[in-house]
Amino acid sequence: MEWGKKAGEILARVRAARPLVHHITNLVVTNVTANTTLAVGASPVMAHAPEEVREMVRLARCLVLNIGTLTPALVDSMIAAGQEANRAGVPVVLDPVGAGATALRTSSAARILSEVRVDVLRGNASEVAIVGGYGATVKGVEAADRPENPAEVTRRMAERLGMVVAATGPVDYVSDGRRTLEVRNGHPLLTAVTGTGCMATAVIGAFRAVEEDGVLAAAAALAYFGYAAELAAARAEGPGSFQVHLLDALYLLQPEELARGARLEEVVA
Amino acid sequence: MEWGKKAGEILARVRAARPLVHHITNLVVTNVTANTTLAVGASPVMAHAPEEVREMVRLARCLVLNIGTLTPALVDSMIAAGQEANRAGVPVVLDPVGAGATALRTSSAARILSEVRVDVLRGNASEVAIVGGYGATVKGVEAADRPENPAEVTRRMAERLGMVVAATGPVDYVSDGRRTLEVRNGHPLLTAVTGTGCMATAVIGAFRAVEEDGVLAAAAALAYFGYAAELAAARAEGPGSFQVHLLDALYLLQPEELARGARLEEVVA
Amino acid sequence: MEWGKKAGEILARVRAARPLVHHITNLVVTNVTANTTLAVGASPVMAHAPEEVREMVRLARCLVLNIGTLTPALVDSMIAAGQEANRAGVPVVLDPVGAGATALRTSSAARILSEVRVDVLRGNASEVAIVGGYGATVKGVEAADRPENPAEVTRRMAERLGMVVAATGPVDYVSDGRRTLEVRNGHPLLTAVTGTGCMATAVIGAFRAVEEDGVLAAAAALAYFGYAAELAAARAEGPGSFQVHLLDALYLLQPEELARGARLEEVVA
Repeated sequence: MEWGKKAGEILARVRAARPLVHHITNLVVTNVTANTTLAVGASPVMAHAPEEVREMVRLARCLVLNIGTLTPALVDSMIAAGQEANRAGVPVVLDPVGAGATALRTSSAARILSEVRVDVLRGNASEVAIVGGYGATVKGVEAADRPENPAEVTRRMAERLGMVVAATGPVDYVSDGRRTLEVRNGHPLLTAVTGTGCMATAVIGAFRAVEEDGVLAAAAALAYFGYAAELAAARAEGPGSFQVHLLDALYLLQPEELARGARLEEVVA
Repeated sequence: MEWGKKAGEILARVRAARPLVHHITNLVVTNVTANTTLAVGASPVMAHAPEEVREMVRLARCLVLNIGTLTPALVDSMIAAGQEANRAGVPVVLDPVGAGATALRTSSAARILSEVRVDVLRGNASEVAIVGGYGATVKGVEAADRPENPAEVTRRMAERLGMVVAATGPVDYVSDGRRTLEVRNGHPLLTAVTGTGCMATAVIGAFRAVEEDGVLAAAAALAYFGYAAELAAARAEGPGSFQVHLLDALYLLQPEELARGARLEEVVA
Repeated sequence: MEWGKKAGEILARVRAARPLVHHITNLVVTNVTANTTLAVGASPVMAHAPEEVREMVRLARCLVLNIGTLTPALVDSMIAAGQEANRAGVPVVLDPVGAGATALRTSSAARILSEVRVDVLRGNASEVAIVGGYGATVKGVEAADRPENPAEVTRRMAERLGMVVAATGPVDYVSDGRRTLEVRNGHPLLTAVTGTGCMATAVIGAFRAVEEDGVLAAAAALAYFGYAAELAAARAEGPGSFQVHLLDALYLLQPEELARGARLEEVVA
């Protein structure tokens, strides 16, 4: 209840402030992440040219980087924007889409993390494990390795990476290495539409733009996104109508409803 | 009434001629501007490679340039296409997305305008003011500076630029420096969906393809687009369903309905 | 009936296997072809960087190449991916969007066909005729030239090209030069939405991923896609809602319904 209320308050602040969120993202989701950002109540700008990303990010209150359909040149732009964001005190959210699938994806995620101070990393469990070095180095280590303890896995990766890690799946876990929150909102239809992970990351960007506490911002964003998905799924017939209702639900969802609908709580170790 | 009837006649001509409209546009709106062009009744082609833009634009009856998510290389393609369009007598419509936000956007818009003869410039009030040199040079000049006289501001910029200027907002103003039309169609939900300005520009491209009078073509296009938005908004629950209904409304709207629904009139100075 | 049943069986196999389909495609349809691939029941990945396409295609069970909004650099990536697919035994589907419209499109399609072993070519009648050398070399030759014999035209092009050719239109024809199937599913609203040809190609990719017989795979895919379009059109008001219902229909359509609804049969010469 307390956490849900906080989530609602952040949503209200997004809508009051309408923060500009700068996205450098992939070709599949440019339209839908811009529309998601608008539906939340923030203001999106998409810009990737190396000639303008530094200037643009200084106008923004959050930078969202997404490496789907990346090229090395695009990663260069992401790093230029990310470093300028670091200098300007603009928080950076990274979505390592496809990390682990190819060497380019894995190494680009690693390169961004080594050259840019990332505030929040949002990926599915396997992407996060690759980026967090968990898949590679902790193999064989027992307890945390077990699927029954994903909260602890997420906490350890956040601790190792020194940032907020949001690992999404049927249950989402968000940790900064100390506190860990879990989010039980969401719906299976999210897996039938492309780019819903990227949309979740975009929502995190909008929430992080107005909330300094990255664990709270990311977990609240995921509760909001997941709860909107539940509302949308109740009215959808398939993935086409789900996507339409999802944008409507994100737009229509009010802070007090979110406070009631968020299934968000702290994980006690 | 007279103006609405003219708007309806242009729409009818678009549907009879199905003109090919060549778009070089941004990554956010490629899909939705192509679908908008189809819904109006014209035929879109998206092509940006420098190797083919000259050949493609010669097949088209209008060229639409849009600088959102630009890169310098893409601007080179726009200029190559625009100059070929000028040689071939194909009208050129420019949407200076984000002019004023970064130096790259502002200088790219200026570069296109200095190297290509643009027929219609469509932007929001601030983009148009930047491109028209109004923001920079006319500051302090009284009458035209006042928000209560945006029609006169638009007229002066059109006069200075020597082209049709369409400045869109709650009320749209279209002028060539002599005649000025205002359009009072539209709906606030247009601001909750990304790329609706780009869609409006795409509709102007389709109308300009079949109508030589650029002021009439642009104003009629904006009345049609705005009226379709009103019809869509009446059935929408939020931005997701609005976007769906908007494409339907553009497709279904008939010339005689447009003649009745268009709120389009000449501004008498 | 027999053919419809086979189509249903392939659909069931796609849903059981959820094959990864690698797309290198155009900027207009990245989102909608990914969503189409998901709606069918397969798993899409979009990747075009030369640094990763070889690695990615080895993870996939089919490669779909689409030359809309091409650049020479993107064609290089397509060829690199296609050649690796050939080495790895991954089938390749090619959509020569816009072949015939510009020299770049026509020569790029030809270049891909000369450097990559393509399994299935899917285009509209005129694209296929250009790529098949039919437009250029068979002009004046009588019988096959006649519109009343498009099945024979398709068969000859397949024979000449040595691959499966799927020529889509009001009636679709699929041939490998020996057997020819025709598909009478579909709906005129497909022409009012951008990228529906590309969506059809994406469905062929998903079906070909699980079915070695390319003629059967392509014809079954087109029957499934066309039948879903019929179901969607029955509920749509215009192109916006049609697109939404189409994704829903693709997702909801069950193998046994497809077996009944497919209008698919062999053409006897």
